[in-house]
Amino acid sequence: MQLGMIGLGRMGANIVRRLMRAGHDAVVFDIDAAAVSRIASEGATGATDLDDFVAALVAPRAVWLMLPHGPTTEAHVQAMAQRLQAGDTLIDGGNSHFHDDVRRAEQLAARGIRYLDVGTSGGVHGLERGYCMMIGGDRPAFERLDPIFKALAPGRGDIPATGSREGLDARAEQGYLYCGAAGAGHFVKMIHNGIEYGMMQAIAEGFDILRNVSKASIPENRRYDLNLADIAEVWRRGSVVSSWLLDLTAEALAENPTLSRFDGVVEDSGEGRWTVQAAIEEAVPAEVLTAALYARFRSRQDHTFAEKVLSAMRYKFGGHVESKG
Amino acid sequence: MQLGMIGLGRMGANIVRRLMRAGHDAVVFDIDAAAVSRIASEGATGATDLDDFVAALVAPRAVWLMLPHGPTTEAHVQAMAQRLQAGDTLIDGGNSHFHDDVRRAEQLAARGIRYLDVGTSGGVHGLERGYCMMIGGDRPAFERLDPIFKALAPGRGDIPATGSREGLDARAEQGYLYCGAAGAGHFVKMIHNGIEYGMMQAIAEGFDILRNVSKASIPENRRYDLNLADIAEVWRRGSVVSSWLLDLTAEALAENPTLSRFDGVVEDSGEGRWTVQAAIEEAVPAEVLTAALYARFRSRQDHTFAEKVLSAMRYKFGGHVESKG
Amino acid sequence: MQLGMIGLGRMGANIVRRLMRAGHDAVVFDIDAAAVSRIASEGATGATDLDDFVAALVAPRAVWLMLPHGPTTEAHVQAMAQRLQAGDTLIDGGNSHFHDDVRRAEQLAARGIRYLDVGTSGGVHGLERGYCMMIGGDRPAFERLDPIFKALAPGRGDIPATGSREGLDARAEQGYLYCGAAGAGHFVKMIHNGIEYGMMQAIAEGFDILRNVSKASIPENRRYDLNLADIAEVWRRGSVVSSWLLDLTAEALAENPTLSRFDGVVEDSGEGRWTVQAAIEEAVPAEVLTAALYARFRSRQDHTFAEKVLSAMRYKFGGHVESKG
Amino acid sequence: MQLGMIGLGRMGANIVRRLMRAGHDAVVFDIDAAAVSRIASEGATGATDLDDFVAALVAPRAVWLMLPHGPTTEAHVQAMAQRLQAGDTLIDGGNSHFHDDVRRAEQLAARGIRYLDVGTSGGVHGLERGYCMMIGGDRPAFERLDPIFKALAPGRGDIPATGSREGLDARAEQGYLYCGAAGAGHFVKMIHNGIEYGMMQAIAEGFDILRNVSKASIPENRRYDLNLADIAEVWRRGSVVSSWLLDLTAEALAENPTLSRFDGVVEDSGEGRWTVQAAIEEAVPAEVLTAALYARFRSRQDHTFAEKVLSAMRYKFGGHVESKG
Repeated sequence: MQLGMIGLGRMGANIVRRLMRAGHDAVVFDIDAAAVSRIASEGATGATDLDDFVAALVAPRAVWLMLPHGPTTEAHVQAMAQRLQAGDTLIDGGNSHFHDDVRRAEQLAARGIRYLDVGTSGGVHGLERGYCMMIGGDRPAFERLDPIFKALAPGRGDIPATGSREGLDARAEQGYLYCGAAGAGHFVKMIHNGIEYGMMQAIAEGFDILRNVSKASIPENRRYDLNLADIAEVWRRGSVVSSWLLDLTAEALAENPTLSRFDGVVEDSGEGRWTVQAAIEEAVPAEVLTAALYARFRSRQDHTFAEKVLSAMRYKFGGHVESKG
Repeated sequence: MQLGMIGLGRMGANIVRRLMRAGHDAVVFDIDAAAVSRIASEGATGATDLDDFVAALVAPRAVWLMLPHGPTTEAHVQAMAQRLQAGDTLIDGGNSHFHDDVRRAEQLAARGIRYLDVGTSGGVHGLERGYCMMIGGDRPAFERLDPIFKALAPGRGDIPATGSREGLDARAEQGYLYCGAAGAGHFVKMIHNGIEYGMMQAIAEGFDILRNVSKASIPENRRYDLNLADIAEVWRRGSVVSSWLLDLTAEALAENPTLSRFDGVVEDSGEGRWTVQAAIEEAVPAEVLTAALYARFRSRQDHTFAEKVLSAMRYKFGGHVESKG
Repeated sequence: MQLGMIGLGRMGANIVRRLMRAGHDAVVFDIDAAAVSRIASEGATGATDLDDFVAALVAPRAVWLMLPHGPTTEAHVQAMAQRLQAGDTLIDGGNSHFHDDVRRAEQLAARGIRYLDVGTSGGVHGLERGYCMMIGGDRPAFERLDPIFKALAPGRGDIPATGSREGLDARAEQGYLYCGAAGAGHFVKMIHNGIEYGMMQAIAEGFDILRNVSKASIPENRRYDLNLADIAEVWRRGSVVSSWLLDLTAEALAENPTLSRFDGVVEDSGEGRWTVQAAIEEAVPAEVLTAALYARFRSRQDHTFAEKVLSAMRYKFGGHVESKG
Repeated sequence: MQLGMIGLGRMGANIVRRLMRAGHDAVVFDIDAAAVSRIASEGATGATDLDDFVAALVAPRAVWLMLPHGPTTEAHVQAMAQRLQAGDTLIDGGNSHFHDDVRRAEQLAARGIRYLDVGTSGGVHGLERGYCMMIGGDRPAFERLDPIFKALAPGRGDIPATGSREGLDARAEQGYLYCGAAGAGHFVKMIHNGIEYGMMQAIAEGFDILRNVSKASIPENRRYDLNLADIAEVWRRGSVVSSWLLDLTAEALAENPTLSRFDGVVEDSGEGRWTVQAAIEEAVPAEVLTAALYARFRSRQDHTFAEKVLSAMRYKFGGHVESKG
């Protein structure tokens, strides 16, 4: 099957590679001509511009955008809206907000173009392990492109089957799922990332407490100098916190036990914020997911203004003068 | 009435002054002889050591400790346990943990010495405004020392009366209250401080959001450059957030609108931690009081180890390299 | 001065009354004719419909909307947009989202109509105490209507002056403030309510811990049966948590010490959510304000689905079967 | 090798079984004679009382306690302290607080008895999958009993090795680890459970948001009726939230998609509380772990008193009357 890919960054390039390994064809474009050449040299058809790209695709076309969310993705959706034809499918595999999917699907449907929103998880490991995909939008388009998704997904692998799944969607066990109407794919991916934030923060706080039990203010007979790398490792075997995130933590700690290589400045990519906004719209208390987001906000500041307000109140009430140094 | 005071820091000295202004007598001691001389020059009887101090008191004696909580207070409780006699009263007016009060009251009772734990709020303003006192321990001792507490308390002042208080304790309206058995006074004071932490943090976060709405990433037509000092001031009149803490914030912002004088390093004095421990023992969810405490913990670190763990996971999963600059 | 008021609910009617007490004239309208008659009998000019209402006003007109935020307010903004003339002023005194103000101000400016957004705090006490007003929008309109705002505001009263306010806006000390361009008034009011949520939750958690220290699982020698009404009362005198919210708590506890009259189902009015959304847009960690919001969400459910997910995981991992009864 | 086991509940019995499968010998005791007979019929040596139990063990003895933490475990520690001899080893494999381990180790050392605290994770799956063990205390005792721990641990299995582990403890890769001096094992296990709470809550909140996006208040074009069982399943393949806890969630949702079988009343077993106490002692902000604990506290109440305080304040300020029905 043929797929057109726009955006050959880390994710886009590896998606193309994994498709080609499975025997599919790819037409590729990126504003970085070197990126196009690189993938073309591995067997893809490189395009020099968007018109050239569309011309190289056979109708009904399938075009996958793998671009930074926001203006870049939006501009390419609009560019494709003008170039694709009725019956073609446009896929946004990036991290768009699901509200944008709803709007785009309506806009493109008016021209007969089908739209799929695909939340794609896999990181730098996707090429080897496969991509977990959460898909929303036009159902017939999804069905037609099933071979593409199947090739990208991890497949069953040696992961033990879940019991009681009779009558449920077998594709979920392959690692891809049609979730529902336009936006459903990105909605599910957004919540996935929200959960990811929360799990990461849970692990991070735990290791913080493990580490600080060595500090001098702790009474000596219960002060421990723990080997964090070994602890992460032991938890990978038979413990209920075993998880991919723990695997990654174990690797990082084995390489650099004090994590001195890392500043501790933590970005957030949008989905964490949107998850909290969705929780608020639904009136769902989401304490942990929100706390995880705020920990990242806090990590990027020397001091918050709130902290200065606290210091100021303490000074005014109790005459406390506080300072680090 | 006569009161002995040990500890002539900011709080202890002003308590003595307020008592003397009301016509009471004070015998005072502090390890800092200069502090003793200063108060003695204002009319108190200065003591040169603890034996001298006890000798200057008339039985039944009343001794108030106003010392840093922890080992210093404990040592003086034990020193008084050896020097006081049956019928005397020992008052801990500092910020001891209520568990310590329970233990001490039992220990002293075995020798016939009465014990009162007094949570004392007032800060640097107590001399003029009076002290709000939450009192636990031996009830007869409390009743006997009522004139002392009455003199220290703010009194009704011009604060409007609360309705429906028929049959309730009239002393609460004076600003002091017998709360219950040993430890009850410090327990109530501890919760008071826990609430203080939460209210402070609420105000602080609000001003943080007010301030950051001026930042460049906010769309220009809803970016505001707000005058925080004026906002704090306007809220003091007729708004439901009006409070002493807001008054203090208004003062601080009027003097220094950017709070540039403050580092934003915020200590915690113990009661905030103990409040959370009490909540956990009682299985009461205390999200806000705990978050307020953690904000202070966080304010004292450049980066938490947790943040480095997050960075490390992000690097391992997505190849993200994060740094401040 | 003359003001037109649309919306004669609790807030609108009392605003009119306070204006009339100060010698101003009011033209009033409400879809409830009885509400119009009531205020008309107190001296206002009642209108039978919106056209009649506008006809009774003298140019340059000033129309204040005091309506439920959302569709009702929006419909009346649009109705006024069609009926008012260049030079007139439309005031939204309700709790609109500041984004709506920005949009409306632009729309009305195109027709020469001035727009003010006024965040109004005061509750059922506003008639007597006055209203704290945070004002955004057209500055000349604000200056022209100064007598109206001055009459509604609480004034200085006997609240002690804040030091160091030389050069700052004297109107803040009267209880009203021009905050900035369109939306600034409602933005500041929104944050005010966010802080209110946080302060309320801090007080509420504190009393929860005070109350549960009486429960049977607490060791007997540190189990206290505290009088919460007296504790609230004593904190009103000289304590740093003294605040209007504490005054209200003291009243409620004096009337009904167990609060058995209250179900504990707590609504949220919108501003709490918007405050969190603003925090997220600005990347400000707002732990306490958010936790206060979530506590309200949680209060309205028997059990969250999240809790069932927890139970399910525990059952699957450890065979735990959990049930209330 | 021979091990004595006291406590034949779910965990203790399966530990004995797993040991016997590996060719070790077991002497067992439980106050429930039927439980003793059952394991005896599978090949263990059953004891009728503690003296009989000790008599059946060959010196240097190794006794494992697998009992409810708290008084039951403590009583058996003391009973063994009286019956064991110098050179014997007492193992607490339950969930004791690490402070108790420190105290016990000192007490037993005075009599020459060695003490090991073993945090044991595995739940109902341990018999088949093996137990992840975190071990503190007497190092020579640990080394001597290595064959026991090795038999109980999961072993490497087919879990991919972590890179860069040269020079680190190879036993961690088998699923057991000597963590440090007395208490270190239970400390690490405690943090493990704290992290578990946080990860569980992250997953639970995520599914709560997924489920509530179907509710009627959400605009129809972005309201989704998601299949939660399929979503849990798809995330098991290639997604970064893949974890054992997610596996369990997927099973539970496949069996009972609405989780109607579960009340949502969630107990906490102690370690979650102790983790927060440790965080507070170390001044580590642990927002997520604490929020997860509080969610459990809240799940066990119809309404908190805090919620009633909120309702009362709202009534007093705004005249709001709130009720569920």
